[in-house]
Amino acid sequence: MSNTIGNTYRFTTFGESHGVCVGVVIDGCPAGHKVDLNHIQSELDRRRPGQSNLTTTRNEPDKVEVISGIFNGVTTGAPICMVIRNKDRNSSKYETLRWTPRPGHADYTAEARYGGHQDYRGGGRFSGRNTAALVMAGALAKQIIASVGVQVMGYTAQIGDIQAPEPTVEEIKEHTESNPVRCPDQETAEKMIQAIEEAKIDSDSIGGKVKCLALYIPPGVGQPVFDTLEGDLAKALFSVPAVKAVEFGAGVLLASMRGSESNDPFNVKDGKIGTESNNSGGIQGGISNGMPITCTVTFKPTPSIAQPQTTVNMKTLEETTINIHGRHDPCIVPRAVPVVESMTAAVLLDHLLRSGHVKQVMEEQK
Amino acid sequence: MSNTIGNTYRFTTFGESHGVCVGVVIDGCPAGHKVDLNHIQSELDRRRPGQSNLTTTRNEPDKVEVISGIFNGVTTGAPICMVIRNKDRNSSKYETLRWTPRPGHADYTAEARYGGHQDYRGGGRFSGRNTAALVMAGALAKQIIASVGVQVMGYTAQIGDIQAPEPTVEEIKEHTESNPVRCPDQETAEKMIQAIEEAKIDSDSIGGKVKCLALYIPPGVGQPVFDTLEGDLAKALFSVPAVKAVEFGAGVLLASMRGSESNDPFNVKDGKIGTESNNSGGIQGGISNGMPITCTVTFKPTPSIAQPQTTVNMKTLEETTINIHGRHDPCIVPRAVPVVESMTAAVLLDHLLRSGHVKQVMEEQK
Amino acid sequence: MSNTIGNTYRFTTFGESHGVCVGVVIDGCPAGHKVDLNHIQSELDRRRPGQSNLTTTRNEPDKVEVISGIFNGVTTGAPICMVIRNKDRNSSKYETLRWTPRPGHADYTAEARYGGHQDYRGGGRFSGRNTAALVMAGALAKQIIASVGVQVMGYTAQIGDIQAPEPTVEEIKEHTESNPVRCPDQETAEKMIQAIEEAKIDSDSIGGKVKCLALYIPPGVGQPVFDTLEGDLAKALFSVPAVKAVEFGAGVLLASMRGSESNDPFNVKDGKIGTESNNSGGIQGGISNGMPITCTVTFKPTPSIAQPQTTVNMKTLEETTINIHGRHDPCIVPRAVPVVESMTAAVLLDHLLRSGHVKQVMEEQK
Amino acid sequence: MSNTIGNTYRFTTFGESHGVCVGVVIDGCPAGHKVDLNHIQSELDRRRPGQSNLTTTRNEPDKVEVISGIFNGVTTGAPICMVIRNKDRNSSKYETLRWTPRPGHADYTAEARYGGHQDYRGGGRFSGRNTAALVMAGALAKQIIASVGVQVMGYTAQIGDIQAPEPTVEEIKEHTESNPVRCPDQETAEKMIQAIEEAKIDSDSIGGKVKCLALYIPPGVGQPVFDTLEGDLAKALFSVPAVKAVEFGAGVLLASMRGSESNDPFNVKDGKIGTESNNSGGIQGGISNGMPITCTVTFKPTPSIAQPQTTVNMKTLEETTINIHGRHDPCIVPRAVPVVESMTAAVLLDHLLRSGHVKQVMEEQK
Repeated sequence: MSNTIGNTYRFTTFGESHGVCVGVVIDGCPAGHKVDLNHIQSELDRRRPGQSNLTTTRNEPDKVEVISGIFNGVTTGAPICMVIRNKDRNSSKYETLRWTPRPGHADYTAEARYGGHQDYRGGGRFSGRNTAALVMAGALAKQIIASVGVQVMGYTAQIGDIQAPEPTVEEIKEHTESNPVRCPDQETAEKMIQAIEEAKIDSDSIGGKVKCLALYIPPGVGQPVFDTLEGDLAKALFSVPAVKAVEFGAGVLLASMRGSESNDPFNVKDGKIGTESNNSGGIQGGISNGMPITCTVTFKPTPSIAQPQTTVNMKTLEETTINIHGRHDPCIVPRAVPVVESMTAAVLLDHLLRSGHVKQVMEEQK
Repeated sequence: MSNTIGNTYRFTTFGESHGVCVGVVIDGCPAGHKVDLNHIQSELDRRRPGQSNLTTTRNEPDKVEVISGIFNGVTTGAPICMVIRNKDRNSSKYETLRWTPRPGHADYTAEARYGGHQDYRGGGRFSGRNTAALVMAGALAKQIIASVGVQVMGYTAQIGDIQAPEPTVEEIKEHTESNPVRCPDQETAEKMIQAIEEAKIDSDSIGGKVKCLALYIPPGVGQPVFDTLEGDLAKALFSVPAVKAVEFGAGVLLASMRGSESNDPFNVKDGKIGTESNNSGGIQGGISNGMPITCTVTFKPTPSIAQPQTTVNMKTLEETTINIHGRHDPCIVPRAVPVVESMTAAVLLDHLLRSGHVKQVMEEQK
Repeated sequence: MSNTIGNTYRFTTFGESHGVCVGVVIDGCPAGHKVDLNHIQSELDRRRPGQSNLTTTRNEPDKVEVISGIFNGVTTGAPICMVIRNKDRNSSKYETLRWTPRPGHADYTAEARYGGHQDYRGGGRFSGRNTAALVMAGALAKQIIASVGVQVMGYTAQIGDIQAPEPTVEEIKEHTESNPVRCPDQETAEKMIQAIEEAKIDSDSIGGKVKCLALYIPPGVGQPVFDTLEGDLAKALFSVPAVKAVEFGAGVLLASMRGSESNDPFNVKDGKIGTESNNSGGIQGGISNGMPITCTVTFKPTPSIAQPQTTVNMKTLEETTINIHGRHDPCIVPRAVPVVESMTAAVLLDHLLRSGHVKQVMEEQK
Repeated sequence: MSNTIGNTYRFTTFGESHGVCVGVVIDGCPAGHKVDLNHIQSELDRRRPGQSNLTTTRNEPDKVEVISGIFNGVTTGAPICMVIRNKDRNSSKYETLRWTPRPGHADYTAEARYGGHQDYRGGGRFSGRNTAALVMAGALAKQIIASVGVQVMGYTAQIGDIQAPEPTVEEIKEHTESNPVRCPDQETAEKMIQAIEEAKIDSDSIGGKVKCLALYIPPGVGQPVFDTLEGDLAKALFSVPAVKAVEFGAGVLLASMRGSESNDPFNVKDGKIGTESNNSGGIQGGISNGMPITCTVTFKPTPSIAQPQTTVNMKTLEETTINIHGRHDPCIVPRAVPVVESMTAAVLLDHLLRSGHVKQVMEEQK
């Protein structure tokens, strides 16, 4: 396994769905930044199961505990370990599924990769529960990039066939948290809720898209030719379970465009160079151009569904049918919004540190 | 900058469009593998400018030279350096564009990132010419993964609005190289050619998509939670200039699906576990499941177009109009096919080495 | 800070001397290896304070807790987190030393590096207490390399001017743990104990050397030209507080030798290639040759001494005198033996994994 | 193999003793620094064979060629490739030694590691000739750290039993290059020359020590707990062939000291915190304290000697005797001085970049 990501703001996650806890060790966080633990908790709460009747009924308080690296409320430069405990563990039902991998899950690939030794209870290391560690690392990153004015915000852009109209930044800020699907357009949100409820009634699940924006990134951030902003963001985002596509700017629509349409003409506003349109998503040559960085992340439908599904017994190699009776989200997308934001914030902090835009804070002379 | 990629099969590229050469140093290539230099050359020829009248007229022979790491035709375990020389350099016209960044290019972001010291001639380090280094590393990777039966093949799946029907593996193998757009469906290829020629006549350019398949990857390859197959492939693919979206399996279409449709039911064929459908693109939990790995890469239209475009003067901050008179491809997609294959092959070799599937070859006892 | 070490067997440590706990997250440990927690505990006990009257009186049980990565007593491939709690924390006296750095300690350099935000209590992140994390990672590594027959053993070779005669492997195994200084020669051990007690009586401390051997490493392990065995071992060993010199084989004595004396002539024993002498310490060109790997590590005297010492006030820049009243070891060397062994075992496991000698264990078919 | 070193100033070397060339690709060099190629050449000349009658007679001009990354005499931020060609290759004699490894060389370990596929001619990838790549990377690093006032200087401190008295900085600067052994004390230099000549007459070789100082490093540079200055310097220095010990400050002598003697009391001079003595070699807790960084590097005698030596035939496993008739240095130490300086400078630049002390230079507004 490889459980560390990042170059300068670099973190390592650990824990399993049905183990003691889920945790993260963050290394390379600059010293001297004040930490708002309430904010980290509020971000965890956005990801927490049980926050609405659209989510799994697993009940976890997910209270953050700081183990190291913060002293007198300030980062020390030392590694920051944070954990949340697992409380509501119900492992019993997983024994019956031990040899019959659930379609769409990592049960079979984990078996192949780890030779049968993986903790298979509740997906173990592959559970979506591990994204709580990403949120802790990302929430801290959000606070630190805010010190140089950078903001990251995501929202649900699509559930099934229902797409949200392109919102303004103000609409995202004001309305995203006002409904359980995290869509800034209220009318669309209601349709999305309905689509999720219909899927639930049908013992099914449904996919969707999260859009994420990063505002006020200065021009000149990124480390091409390989550590491009797109590349590092995409790698981070594909570590979120169920993500199957990552697009920047106009994304897949660029395939149908001509250059005269897709090129973003340069302009000057308030004495700063910008672009008229933003088809490139704020990134050219892997480097930020000062415009908002925009990306779109596609989530497949939750693989756990309460319908009979065809699978095979890994020991006998016989085909069989399974029924999954766990507690699952009919749509993971609304809870994924803070996770996408977190990975985006973490990667951007990493690059802002690499380019020298974010620095250690020196203690004021007393 | 960060010009090294990969963990175990790890390479570093260097060179600029108008410098001495473009090169790569490959580290971590296992010892004892025979190298077919003709194959590397033929891969470079697939990427080479001037191979058809759909491409730039820059004339470069792009002959591979091996500098180190291969002895008696076999890899030694030492770093393998390969270069191609730059011959047909015409740098004169770039001086006039020095302070007026070309829309869609990295001129402005490179200026912001490197403080004005970057080699700006022909895009310098950001030129698509540097993908020749990727092809050299990828061609070698293809040869080595072939030793365990893995095959990588790409084709042009879309140009503008024209989409190719899903081909069989046999069609890809037989027909992709039979037309200059590298589309396995001959009828579609003709429409694609026409679309490119129309863009060219209009002094414009056009985007498209490359699909890439990797066959016969064994199950159990990948290093989650962060070095997932998707994440590492995406990072590698986003380092290719003009790539703006990467999808696996059904990709963005998964947003509209339900779980009962998107889940790939397991089956057994010839005593091996597989899946009925392949919406996951052969990857679950970041690990291969033994089915073909499939990805789709969106390329934006070539940013250089022979039309007047609005830009700004970076010194005076005045808006102005530029005309680009270089030699450019109206559509980069056909030449990008071997580049996408190369990055895919390199990442897969990296992971096959990490999981122990590909090994050093011991010399036969004499 | 940079708190991760290793390439394939890679671990990250966290915690401070007066914080909640000291911990480690081990990533890249192959799946399927049985873990003996009693052995890990016994290694921690060898490092634990208070094990004899030669050590600090800080009383810490140092009981290992496994947080993740081990399931049914076997490694799963997932990251393994282990911690020990800090119990006997007495932070009061450190406030008086806040602005007057202790000579020989990292107080001043930490202040300069982390801008005054470091946790300064008891050395914080720089405390020798953090070596417990190294011992947990190293004890696990010892168990896994034992699966391919590799053994690592250390002993105290010198305290002050008192040097131990070169012991046999059997003497190390049988006698090292029979005395509190961990010297396999009983007579020398007594002199060493006396030297430490004399230093203690004089309110002083004393330095020494640890020698470490690794037996049964197969030939052909190492990753030159930069990830040499010597280089990786030295880097790991210099992360242990108070280490100021690392030598391999005959070490510094090689400067006085001639080639005819220092070269190790090859021979054949039991059908295996070996060398007559072992001045190279089992490593040539950064790669193991099958002979025992031998290294010698010099520890400076414990910097904390109960004598008045000259220092400066970092705020006023005035010279002043301090008295350190903490609980400290008059000689750190005996407790450092398991730490040196641990770093050696961890680096060797890392390289044995990289060269394919140690592998994941597949579950037996049921 | 692993041929890349460094975190931010990171370089990859390639080439073999009897191949086309020896080269280096430097990545992460900040943009905007002027490069003095004459200085790089003069550093190569200090390492070059044939500079005195104490060295091998292999005649190589070792002229540096810049392949990429420098534009208008200034670093661009892009990877900098530099090479020297191999001219005077005489590979004939190595065929006779193919199966009989030379004692003290990496012939046998390379065979074991690379399965017989390594380029064995003249030591191939293990040849001391590859240190020319280190000198190119180090010479550039010296120029860039000089921009913040840091100076690195080495000298020969010991040859055989002959030790130089501790020189002043001025003596090192003025006298080191005035004699072929690079010892700042003229009288000692003559004895060292004699010792080398005697070894040569005896068909033997001789070892020695290089001391290296880095002056004017600001306090607060280093990345503990694992990327300590000592650890990173030691790892880099152990990649130089024939190095078997690395010490900092008082080094191995600290084992015999007491804390009251070894601790460096703090003082204030010219308004700056410093230390009275410098037994710690300018590093505490892995971080610089502003005093000179001092290290001592032990080189074993050149393994190639013109005497019959015992070895084994790797195919037949029979013991046999070989005579080495190559062109070799009776003592490698004098030519190693610029190599030690180079690795020191490269590591220090890496850390000065990581701590933000060295930066990219912005182009002056025109």
